[in-house]
Amino acid sequence: MKGKVYLVGAGPGDPELLTVKALRLLRTAQAVLHDDLVSPEILRLIPPTAQVYNVGKRCGKKKIRQVEINFLMVALAQSGLRVVRLKGGDPLIFGRAREEMESLRQANIACEVVPGVTSALGAAAAAKIPLTDRRSSSALVFLTAHQSDDRADGSEALNWTKLAGSGATLVIYMPGRDYAAIARKLIAAGLARETPCAIISQATTQSQRTNRITIAELLSAPQLPSPALLVVGEVVRLADPALMLQEVRVPAVSAASPAAFAAALLADSPAQVANFGINEEPGA
Amino acid sequence: MKGKVYLVGAGPGDPELLTVKALRLLRTAQAVLHDDLVSPEILRLIPPTAQVYNVGKRCGKKKIRQVEINFLMVALAQSGLRVVRLKGGDPLIFGRAREEMESLRQANIACEVVPGVTSALGAAAAAKIPLTDRRSSSALVFLTAHQSDDRADGSEALNWTKLAGSGATLVIYMPGRDYAAIARKLIAAGLARETPCAIISQATTQSQRTNRITIAELLSAPQLPSPALLVVGEVVRLADPALMLQEVRVPAVSAASPAAFAAALLADSPAQVANFGINEEPGA
Repeated sequence: MKGKVYLVGAGPGDPELLTVKALRLLRTAQAVLHDDLVSPEILRLIPPTAQVYNVGKRCGKKKIRQVEINFLMVALAQSGLRVVRLKGGDPLIFGRAREEMESLRQANIACEVVPGVTSALGAAAAAKIPLTDRRSSSALVFLTAHQSDDRADGSEALNWTKLAGSGATLVIYMPGRDYAAIARKLIAAGLARETPCAIISQATTQSQRTNRITIAELLSAPQLPSPALLVVGEVVRLADPALMLQEVRVPAVSAASPAAFAAALLADSPAQVANFGINEEPGA
Repeated sequence: MKGKVYLVGAGPGDPELLTVKALRLLRTAQAVLHDDLVSPEILRLIPPTAQVYNVGKRCGKKKIRQVEINFLMVALAQSGLRVVRLKGGDPLIFGRAREEMESLRQANIACEVVPGVTSALGAAAAAKIPLTDRRSSSALVFLTAHQSDDRADGSEALNWTKLAGSGATLVIYMPGRDYAAIARKLIAAGLARETPCAIISQATTQSQRTNRITIAELLSAPQLPSPALLVVGEVVRLADPALMLQEVRVPAVSAASPAAFAAALLADSPAQVANFGINEEPGA
């Protein structure tokens, strides 16, 4: 009997931002292949009986090739296991889902995609930035910092410039270490140097940090730890001023022990859940 | 004592695509203000003791004005209640979150944003369309069909054209009834008439329908029921061929009674959760 593979989004970091379905699949998985970006608090929810493989790539150093990930996924499913392929954020955004879904289809293995909260939404929620706004931005663009380097003929670079200069809110995934290079590209695309932007690092986790600056200041902005995101556009001006500090206090739920977290989630009593909620919201 | 308002994303439709945090907040809410787009299965998770207000706008006919929603939210929180403002998808994308957050800030009421799975991600997961792909599209654009009509000077129309012609995957929210008008705008933006696109209606619910066509065919494509989304770009070619039928069979979890759903979620036994899962996956 063949198993099945679930491509599951782990969300932006906070275990409570898993979907109910992702949590159920994780708790009943027989094998899990996960990226580096998935937080340790989430990995602790995997049952001890499951086989767990870290197939992430650290610091650009490829630990495992994509074909090897595909091979492992197929082999585990062919041995009859319920396999969860766990990706940070949403599985269909910047996650090489195409390659993985194709290899499963070729091997005739059932596959289901479980969407997740993509990092941009976690970061925006944490900083209370409305990503679209009737008055200042009615479209939203997700792109990466490095995609323009791929083609020699410059066609990608042109698209980056079109997108960046469109007036839409930009969310730049994986901005890397060279903020100045991004700032120069944004200016080259026609954005004003005063355009507000926010670097949001490790959003929705206890280590979350947010830095609200302008494109001009981005040229010399201090590095924030990865994973980080850069949000660019007039909507950043609407962010909650109280949250736009270097250090942001994050609710303590992520710090709760996995046992306490699972217990509260699984508690039959709404009161218990409510108490857990109140612990988490000192400002309530 | 003042209450607090949670701006919560309800996800694309399937109750299992609520985040764990959204489910906890819903189950302990004292007042809920929700949009029309939130599915009845999700509304049934609200405790019977909570005050529930439908503040949605049906068929373009404004039932309640935005200032009235803001006023109600503030009044409920000022009376000391835990208020959930529940929006389809994610609260910060096309949801007028700016207006609501500003009114809460002005009234000095604590507010927290809980991100959700935005509709585009639910639709893409249901149709297994990788929204980005290293080879064919390294950026993603969310926009609406009607945004170009807002300004008399044509500046918005220009941006729409820039975005549509960038080569990025496009997800058009709220495509409305006039698919032909969208097709003409896409062609005007320089897209080939053979560009694949998919209309995905009521994604992740039992009524989900998917229609994979081209921009040329969009000119005369049959209407699918709202809420619907239009995905445009080469990545649509990568969608699972088996899913690209007019009618798509959707897992039966949404049909389970609220009691069964809550019981399975809250069950202390992983076996019970696993059984619930197996019921849902006839293809496993």
